[in-house]
Amino acid sequence: QRIGFPEVIYGEGKSAEQLVLIAQRMKERSDKLLVTRVDADKAAAVVAQAPELSYHPDAQALTGFGQALPPVVREGYVAVVCAGTSDMRIAQEAALTLEMMGSRVERIHDVGVAGIHRLFARLDVIRGADVVIAIAGMEGALPSVLGGLIAKPLIAVPTSVGYGTGLNGLIALGAMLNSCAPGVTVVNIDNGFGAAYAASNIHKSIRSER
Amino acid sequence: QRIGFPEVIYGEGKSAEQLVLIAQRMKERSDKLLVTRVDADKAAAVVAQAPELSYHPDAQALTGFGQALPPVVREGYVAVVCAGTSDMRIAQEAALTLEMMGSRVERIHDVGVAGIHRLFARLDVIRGADVVIAIAGMEGALPSVLGGLIAKPLIAVPTSVGYGTGLNGLIALGAMLNSCAPGVTVVNIDNGFGAAYAASNIHKSIRSER
Amino acid sequence: QRIGFPEVIYGEGKSAEQLVLIAQRMKERSDKLLVTRVDADKAAAVVAQAPELSYHPDAQALTGFGQALPPVVREGYVAVVCAGTSDMRIAQEAALTLEMMGSRVERIHDVGVAGIHRLFARLDVIRGADVVIAIAGMEGALPSVLGGLIAKPLIAVPTSVGYGTGLNGLIALGAMLNSCAPGVTVVNIDNGFGAAYAASNIHKSIRSER
Amino acid sequence: QRIGFPEVIYGEGKSAEQLVLIAQRMKERSDKLLVTRVDADKAAAVVAQAPELSYHPDAQALTGFGQALPPVVREGYVAVVCAGTSDMRIAQEAALTLEMMGSRVERIHDVGVAGIHRLFARLDVIRGADVVIAIAGMEGALPSVLGGLIAKPLIAVPTSVGYGTGLNGLIALGAMLNSCAPGVTVVNIDNGFGAAYAASNIHKSIRSER
Amino acid sequence: QRIGFPEVIYGEGKSAEQLVLIAQRMKERSDKLLVTRVDADKAAAVVAQAPELSYHPDAQALTGFGQALPPVVREGYVAVVCAGTSDMRIAQEAALTLEMMGSRVERIHDVGVAGIHRLFARLDVIRGADVVIAIAGMEGALPSVLGGLIAKPLIAVPTSVGYGTGLNGLIALGAMLNSCAPGVTVVNIDNGFGAAYAASNIHKSIRSER
Amino acid sequence: QRIGFPEVIYGEGKSAEQLVLIAQRMKERSDKLLVTRVDADKAAAVVAQAPELSYHPDAQALTGFGQALPPVVREGYVAVVCAGTSDMRIAQEAALTLEMMGSRVERIHDVGVAGIHRLFARLDVIRGADVVIAIAGMEGALPSVLGGLIAKPLIAVPTSVGYGTGLNGLIALGAMLNSCAPGVTVVNIDNGFGAAYAASNIHKSIRSER
Amino acid sequence: QRIGFPEVIYGEGKSAEQLVLIAQRMKERSDKLLVTRVDADKAAAVVAQAPELSYHPDAQALTGFGQALPPVVREGYVAVVCAGTSDMRIAQEAALTLEMMGSRVERIHDVGVAGIHRLFARLDVIRGADVVIAIAGMEGALPSVLGGLIAKPLIAVPTSVGYGTGLNGLIALGAMLNSCAPGVTVVNIDNGFGAAYAASNIHKSIRSER
Amino acid sequence: QRIGFPEVIYGEGKSAEQLVLIAQRMKERSDKLLVTRVDADKAAAVVAQAPELSYHPDAQALTGFGQALPPVVREGYVAVVCAGTSDMRIAQEAALTLEMMGSRVERIHDVGVAGIHRLFARLDVIRGADVVIAIAGMEGALPSVLGGLIAKPLIAVPTSVGYGTGLNGLIALGAMLNSCAPGVTVVNIDNGFGAAYAASNIHKSIRSER
Ligand SMILES: Nc1ncnc2c1ncn2[C@@H]1O[C@H](COP(=O)(O)O)[C@@H](O)[C@H]1O
Ligand SMILES: Nc1ncnc2c1ncn2[C@@H]1O[C@H](COP(=O)(O)O)[C@@H](O)[C@H]1O
Ligand SMILES: Nc1ncnc2c1ncn2[C@@H]1O[C@H](COP(=O)(O)O)[C@@H](O)[C@H]1O
Ligand SMILES: Nc1ncnc2c1ncn2[C@@H]1O[C@H](COP(=O)(O)O)[C@@H](O)[C@H]1O
Ligand SMILES: [Mg+2]
Ligand SMILES: [Mg+2]
Ligand SMILES: [Mg+2]
Ligand SMILES: [Mg+2]
Ligand SMILES: [Mg+2]
Ligand SMILES: [Mg+2]
Ligand SMILES: [Mg+2]
Ligand SMILES: [Mg+2]
Repeated sequence: QRIGFPEVIYGEGKSAEQLVLIAQRMKERSDKLLVTRVDADKAAAVVAQAPELSYHPDAQALTGFGQALPPVVREGYVAVVCAGTSDMRIAQEAALTLEMMGSRVERIHDVGVAGIHRLFARLDVIRGADVVIAIAGMEGALPSVLGGLIAKPLIAVPTSVGYGTGLNGLIALGAMLNSCAPGVTVVNIDNGFGAAYAASNIHKSIRSER
Repeated sequence: QRIGFPEVIYGEGKSAEQLVLIAQRMKERSDKLLVTRVDADKAAAVVAQAPELSYHPDAQALTGFGQALPPVVREGYVAVVCAGTSDMRIAQEAALTLEMMGSRVERIHDVGVAGIHRLFARLDVIRGADVVIAIAGMEGALPSVLGGLIAKPLIAVPTSVGYGTGLNGLIALGAMLNSCAPGVTVVNIDNGFGAAYAASNIHKSIRSER
Repeated sequence: QRIGFPEVIYGEGKSAEQLVLIAQRMKERSDKLLVTRVDADKAAAVVAQAPELSYHPDAQALTGFGQALPPVVREGYVAVVCAGTSDMRIAQEAALTLEMMGSRVERIHDVGVAGIHRLFARLDVIRGADVVIAIAGMEGALPSVLGGLIAKPLIAVPTSVGYGTGLNGLIALGAMLNSCAPGVTVVNIDNGFGAAYAASNIHKSIRSER
Repeated sequence: QRIGFPEVIYGEGKSAEQLVLIAQRMKERSDKLLVTRVDADKAAAVVAQAPELSYHPDAQALTGFGQALPPVVREGYVAVVCAGTSDMRIAQEAALTLEMMGSRVERIHDVGVAGIHRLFARLDVIRGADVVIAIAGMEGALPSVLGGLIAKPLIAVPTSVGYGTGLNGLIALGAMLNSCAPGVTVVNIDNGFGAAYAASNIHKSIRSER
Repeated sequence: QRIGFPEVIYGEGKSAEQLVLIAQRMKERSDKLLVTRVDADKAAAVVAQAPELSYHPDAQALTGFGQALPPVVREGYVAVVCAGTSDMRIAQEAALTLEMMGSRVERIHDVGVAGIHRLFARLDVIRGADVVIAIAGMEGALPSVLGGLIAKPLIAVPTSVGYGTGLNGLIALGAMLNSCAPGVTVVNIDNGFGAAYAASNIHKSIRSER
Repeated sequence: QRIGFPEVIYGEGKSAEQLVLIAQRMKERSDKLLVTRVDADKAAAVVAQAPELSYHPDAQALTGFGQALPPVVREGYVAVVCAGTSDMRIAQEAALTLEMMGSRVERIHDVGVAGIHRLFARLDVIRGADVVIAIAGMEGALPSVLGGLIAKPLIAVPTSVGYGTGLNGLIALGAMLNSCAPGVTVVNIDNGFGAAYAASNIHKSIRSER
Repeated sequence: QRIGFPEVIYGEGKSAEQLVLIAQRMKERSDKLLVTRVDADKAAAVVAQAPELSYHPDAQALTGFGQALPPVVREGYVAVVCAGTSDMRIAQEAALTLEMMGSRVERIHDVGVAGIHRLFARLDVIRGADVVIAIAGMEGALPSVLGGLIAKPLIAVPTSVGYGTGLNGLIALGAMLNSCAPGVTVVNIDNGFGAAYAASNIHKSIRSER
Repeated sequence: QRIGFPEVIYGEGKSAEQLVLIAQRMKERSDKLLVTRVDADKAAAVVAQAPELSYHPDAQALTGFGQALPPVVREGYVAVVCAGTSDMRIAQEAALTLEMMGSRVERIHDVGVAGIHRLFARLDVIRGADVVIAIAGMEGALPSVLGGLIAKPLIAVPTSVGYGTGLNGLIALGAMLNSCAPGVTVVNIDNGFGAAYAASNIHKSIRSER
């Protein structure tokens, strides 16, 4: 019913058969589909039966129905910043979700706080964004550092990935909620989709459709 | 240094003497001050020595230095919605912080999910806002219900207040992070100030200063 | 010994062989059997050897020994309401348990609080019930909303299913225990059977056998 | 609006002045009032200004406005069973709430599971009830033992009181949720009011008003 | 070095090959061996190479080197009491450990508190014991009830088995530590071996070797 | 009814008036009374009205009714070993409880594992005991070290006292339950009384009354 | 016995009288004393009776017996770095402990990660230290950022102070243990003394006494 | 860029193919590589394609590129002490990391506190070290005992391995943080690499390169 907005399926725990069926049903009432949390094997089985879907291995997601990605529909961009290479699947899920909703995305990867010069090297492109998503696991410090450097809407995503014992992301989550930088808001652990959805709500409010 | 932006002091654990001293120092470099978490007794002692500060008992906060509140500087408004009467102190802290940052605020109180007709009665004013802050304790369900009814940026604040055993707000926090409504972002327990700061960042991005 | 009451077996962790043996022993002293938590593969192996049992795939349960379900023995009905499609296995377990105990059941599915109009569309049938079971995962908000809309005995079941990080149902459990709607009682996570057993105790007290 | 139903105030954290004001406002729209969680000192201050309220020290609650308690309006009774003397405040809160809602109550105190003969001595009166509320702290075992002995609706209340380190009632709560007796439903820690409200909902369904 | 005392190996996480090697090394310096936590498959592989070991499937343990069990060497007996059938593996581990240490054991199974008449039916044999081990999962109530009925040394073992969500035994552990029956001591979750070792220490102190 | 056995009152949370009343009632049916957890001020108020009670400030307990302590009634002794000076109140509670039950006690204080030579200096008297109680806070390591040095029944008591952040004794409790020395049994945090009660049960079984 | 090493008393929970007594006893066998965790009122009462002790209000500690601080006895220095003004008490406790052990200290305060330029401004003095102690509350990010900038021994201290809900320091503790900067070691929450003791052990190993 | 310092890869969750690729890339810019957390099967697949790497099965790690281990480059040694045989993988990871960084290592295994004579037998070699790493699971008591016996820098590593229920190492971690021996610093659970990295930082500061 919301024209131009993608239908979204959470793929985890659903079989390839179930996903094909749901996709077929969706096709009747929407022209854009996003299926998150689909590993490569399941994706291959789905695409074999539903070739109008495209797989994005980095984001572990399927999109459809026309071209792999819809066109950008508004000015400006969202920066998706992530601390470590192991956080990249979540970052790609966030970036792809934003692109499905018509926002342009700048991806800034591997700028964790223990190598802070890498973060400074990319600060201009982060400061140029309309909204920033900061993704980090382990001690989850990236949003605190970023929050002190920029004055834009900033959404933090804690991740369960990475090495060490972070109680599956609870430590990163707690650190982000306790950030000494004011104005950081937080979504659930590994919830790249949710952060992107919120960022898209803000981006849409800032920039009118073109 | 950030012109027009208030200096903010966290009043909890600071004595009246300390607050007076800090306020005097601040006065030299800023024309706007916000002191949060000040109870009525401490506020009286502070205002006795620093009469250029005004006390807001509902928000348990002091403001200064000129008139009690600065003028509104941008179009539109932020809706501050709260579930129960016991959540009102946090709601007033959020509202006052927004007003100190130049945003107009609509206060919508006592619209908890167990009396959902009261929420529906106020839905138009909520839908008209540029940004919505939803504040709830106990089971923290208000943002989930609101998230399904509006398509605006929505920030959730869990509170530690209310009756029953909510692990001092941890249950409300967990519920908001696990909301089935996509796009809800969350701040720390009782952090009305932080939610307002984030909302102000968004509001500023949407509306240019007038 | 309790005539007409089903024997109940918890199937999880028991092999097909063990279940067949137990079923044979039960058959001597009871005419009704319910085996919960049996997946499709194990069920097939059991039914191959014990064809007097029927499998209910939605509820992941086996029943016996005569027809698949006993007749309804009392007036009125119990409403089994569930928030999301992923909560349906627990809802079906509750519904089947109630039917095995002689109660009629109305199933109301997919009425989560983020799409509250779907809940309102089914409110009449919920209000007509003698007892209501409300099942939800994630933030577990459904019983709070329902509790404000009906004045009937209401039992809440938190589930561990659904997307996001709900600490395996602990957040939904905590939210239901802290519901701002008075009169909600709660059973353990995923305990559809227990909720149905309690609901049946209440339904029996309200309606005499016919 | 719900005729004959008491207005209920949660007294904790409200001053005597606030309670007097609320009581006066309530008096205009209701003929029955229950204020829970009021200690003796605060109660004295309230009653001095609002002599139409009666204090019940065992339940730490105030009632009004006419006689101290309304008449019993339905057949049968609810049994309020409690394990230890330190659980008695919660038991009295539950009993008084039920009486305010028009149910007759049988109080069975000090029948903890470590002295099980005392429980057996009172079993007949428990079995004669329409609904049973079982209240226990520490290891919270009472509902499990009772659940095996009776076939009536049974609501368990964990308490934070008693000696030893029970994590403020979390252990008793967890034990009750994990009861090996099927059909036990549970309310929040120390929530005698909530258990009584749920029991009253059931009692009303079983017995028509007389 | 402690003559007549069995060597004990914790089998979990050790391969069949490792167990055979350790057993051979042990044989040189001890005449009694107990290997706990060995499933049927691994046991078969071990016994094929070390036929002087006997497997006890109920206890999931291997013993050696001579006959399957050593003779009883002291008067009196230890009662091993367990609440549910799913607690039986732990109970058998405790019983076998005691027998390897020369104590006679009375096994009392399936006497959970929700069917308390079964416990009373076996009370005489429990009261006749020198030491009692009480094993229970879920709400862990058995030691509290037993503690009120007997005046003998009583050791409680919480188990992680059983149905429902008991936080892997943490609830049963907490309940036993908070028992309202004084004098209950507790070992770690599923630690049948440790309870038996402690019980054996007590039994040896009470009865001289015969 | 149990002749010669003291009546025991848990003093925490009871007023001096309540304690005097209970003591008077107890005097009619028992000749020995133990009241634990009574601070010096409350004790003075009680003794003023009930001079037949004696206060033991180290154990924060009152005893009665005849002489301050009953005679020793069995051979052998119980060793009460404690790690730090801040654990001493719990150690004295345990020792006094044992003396009230007729056992002789050897007190061994300040033998924490970070100064292990002090423990070795007292090892002979510990080894001579019939039962050993080991009390420690912080990391709770004392029972593990002791368990490797003695072969007697050994009961561990975690304490909430001491410096540092031990989660109010939960760390010491967890450490004792996970002791690598087999045969350690554990009671609740700060439960000196419970450990003594269990030790007395064992001591009575070992030594006949003289 | 360790010549030149201070005796250390943990002052919390000890009365002024007890502290005076312990100080007098210590004076006989040591020439240096450190008493931590003493607030201003208690310190005044102690110094009134033991004027050879000096109070350090910032560190909330007393030292003795000769001059307020002993001379520096080794080359180099330890940097004590702290994130916020509310962490300063812990920082001063650490610095004073180091000075009592003969190390020179550089204090670097208020260099939290949300204002990272302040940290960079002090980096040279931090890099010149032999050992670094990093103290932070809230999200505890300071050691991660520092760990990426220096290659010296680095000890992290989480604090319970600061605004927001950090579970009394557990979040900062968890963040520091999960630091993505390798080589960070951690002490308990608020344990400035312990960090200084460890730093002193390292400093002594690096620099011979002069 | 840091000459002579090994590149380090965390192997867990990376495929053999990924590891081969990363190793090839590393070879261009470094002459030393350490890959931790590689099991035997994956190691075999990697070495088949990258024969310049050597596998160390005890440490579950790969090293390269020249000889299996670089030469020792400084005086003195680090002692790696571990409590149980099941902690040995972590101990070997720590030891190998130190050797890759040019330190000599003394390995002292199986000296848990329940057999304290084994620890005393090795005390001289421990006391001779420049830095000590103490590794223990279960109750984690080893660092407390060691901390009372030596005056050298001491780093504690809690492990998740071993028998019993230690909450995956959280109990050992908590015990080490609460050690009554001052000066113990702690790293994350199973973090042998991190402890070695910190120990190497200290060892380098104490001894100049030779
Ligand atoms: N990766 C994701 N993480 C969290 N929530 C998601 C994700 N993908 C989809 N969702 C949510 O799941 C809903 C669809 O769930 P389902 O009906 O089970 O496919 C969507 O409307 C989203 O709210
Ligand atoms: N009510 C509040 N809740 C949470 N954080 C606050 C609050 N008020 C102020 N703060 C934060 O505290 C900082 C000032 O702390 P301080 O320097 O201790 O006064 C501000 O910059 C805000 O980031
Ligand atoms: N089932 C069991 N549960 C807990 N601990 C056990 C068990 N079986 C053996 N142990 C302990 O494990 C030790 C042997 O461990 P290991 O040297 O790894 O074989 C014994 O001395 C016992 O303390
Ligand atoms: N501020 C502190 N934080 C943590 N531990 C401390 C502190 N001050 C002293 N201690 C420890 O407490 C011991 C003295 O404790 P006590 O005998 O109770 O005075 C010292 O040896 C230190 O190990
Ligand atoms: Mg990070
Ligand atoms: Mg709410
Ligand atoms: Mg829900
Ligand atoms: Mg109880
Ligand atoms: Mg049980
Ligand atoms: Mg200790
Ligand atoms: Mg910080
Ligand atoms: Mg150990």
